[in-house]
Amino acid sequence: MDQVRVIEIKKSIFEDNDRDADNLRAELKGKGVFLLNLMSSPGSGKTTTLIKTINSLKDRMKIAVMEADIDSDVDAKKIQEATGVHSIQLHTGGMCHLDAEMTRQGLAGLEQEADLVILENVGNLVCPAEFDTGATKNCMILSVPEGHDKPLKYPLMFSVCDLVLINKIDVMPYFDFDLDLCKKYVLKRNPNARIIPICAKTGEGIEEFAKWLEDNVHKQKGEK
Amino acid sequence: MDQVRVIEIKKSIFEDNDRDADNLRAELKGKGVFLLNLMSSPGSGKTTTLIKTINSLKDRMKIAVMEADIDSDVDAKKIQEATGVHSIQLHTGGMCHLDAEMTRQGLAGLEQEADLVILENVGNLVCPAEFDTGATKNCMILSVPEGHDKPLKYPLMFSVCDLVLINKIDVMPYFDFDLDLCKKYVLKRNPNARIIPICAKTGEGIEEFAKWLEDNVHKQKGEK
Repeated sequence: MDQVRVIEIKKSIFEDNDRDADNLRAELKGKGVFLLNLMSSPGSGKTTTLIKTINSLKDRMKIAVMEADIDSDVDAKKIQEATGVHSIQLHTGGMCHLDAEMTRQGLAGLEQEADLVILENVGNLVCPAEFDTGATKNCMILSVPEGHDKPLKYPLMFSVCDLVLINKIDVMPYFDFDLDLCKKYVLKRNPNARIIPICAKTGEGIEEFAKWLEDNVHKQKGEK
Repeated sequence: MDQVRVIEIKKSIFEDNDRDADNLRAELKGKGVFLLNLMSSPGSGKTTTLIKTINSLKDRMKIAVMEADIDSDVDAKKIQEATGVHSIQLHTGGMCHLDAEMTRQGLAGLEQEADLVILENVGNLVCPAEFDTGATKNCMILSVPEGHDKPLKYPLMFSVCDLVLINKIDVMPYFDFDLDLCKKYVLKRNPNARIIPICAKTGEGIEEFAKWLEDNVHKQKGEK
């Protein structure tokens, strides 16, 4: 396989991240590129979910992945090897989140055009929610072992997400996880959130997530 | 039960957090108080681990708990109800970590003396590792569902911890988690780290953690 490209991104020089993020979102709309900002705790299954979903979608559209990480390049390599899609690693230099300028630096580092760009944000339920990356939509993964009470404890994360994937539903019998209560807590934070229970390991729910992405990619191009 | 006290802590006014943290550590040593800074991802089982451990230790020493959270007071209430020990909630006002001054504000808000104070930091593997709280020792919990590769992805967290608890070992059969490899990765980050596999739900390993705490409390008082 090709070597994965690693980009050392720098902190934004712009004071007004929200304005910069809105500008980036408009530029992406103009180009017909759908950018998904994917957030979660460490270990919730972001990478496995991406691999399954990309393999389902890659023959239907051009996909690129930007993996943000403090300093490893484990995930970008894993995704490129498992799916063949163009993946780059963004090193945040210890930063706990990405902002719009950092996202812009990542996009500029992509070496192939894409209809769908997925940004895997730093594994953290706090800081990434506070900084608008300029992505078209936000998605987060909550995994069953983390507990159904997380929307109560990390309110901002759940309120900024358009889509919440509830992952590892195969292990629900081994954890005290109340799916209905969890959905209720998510909707309390964001009544418009779409919720899809999935199991990245077995593939359950992945088609529904892929369909959501595909619909959004079409919308972004003005095709639907 | 009594109402749990909630303290709104403010960001440090000190530029030099490291010096402030060293000062706090020395003051605690002078008073014979052992302060443990407990860190982890969201949902790794910090609160359940604390409840089990405190119930094992509370007849042998005076314990107090400071629960840091963005804005809920779920955990402090839960701990006070389940153990009877004095617990307060520290609201970080959206901040993703605690620094030494914030910890000092929490300690000043305790209404009872204690031999052991446990600070449950914000659920986050990135930022809390960057700010020395002034605690006597640092401990983190990694849970099996998060994956054995986390020491590779969150290097600083693992290098600052004196003790790593590997929790939820009861569900190891359902996850691709290699305990030996995980231990190797932890020791790569910090060759002096103590590692204890536990299951907060069943109680496995909790006595070993309680013993580690008890030994440290004695040391802090100069009794051993």
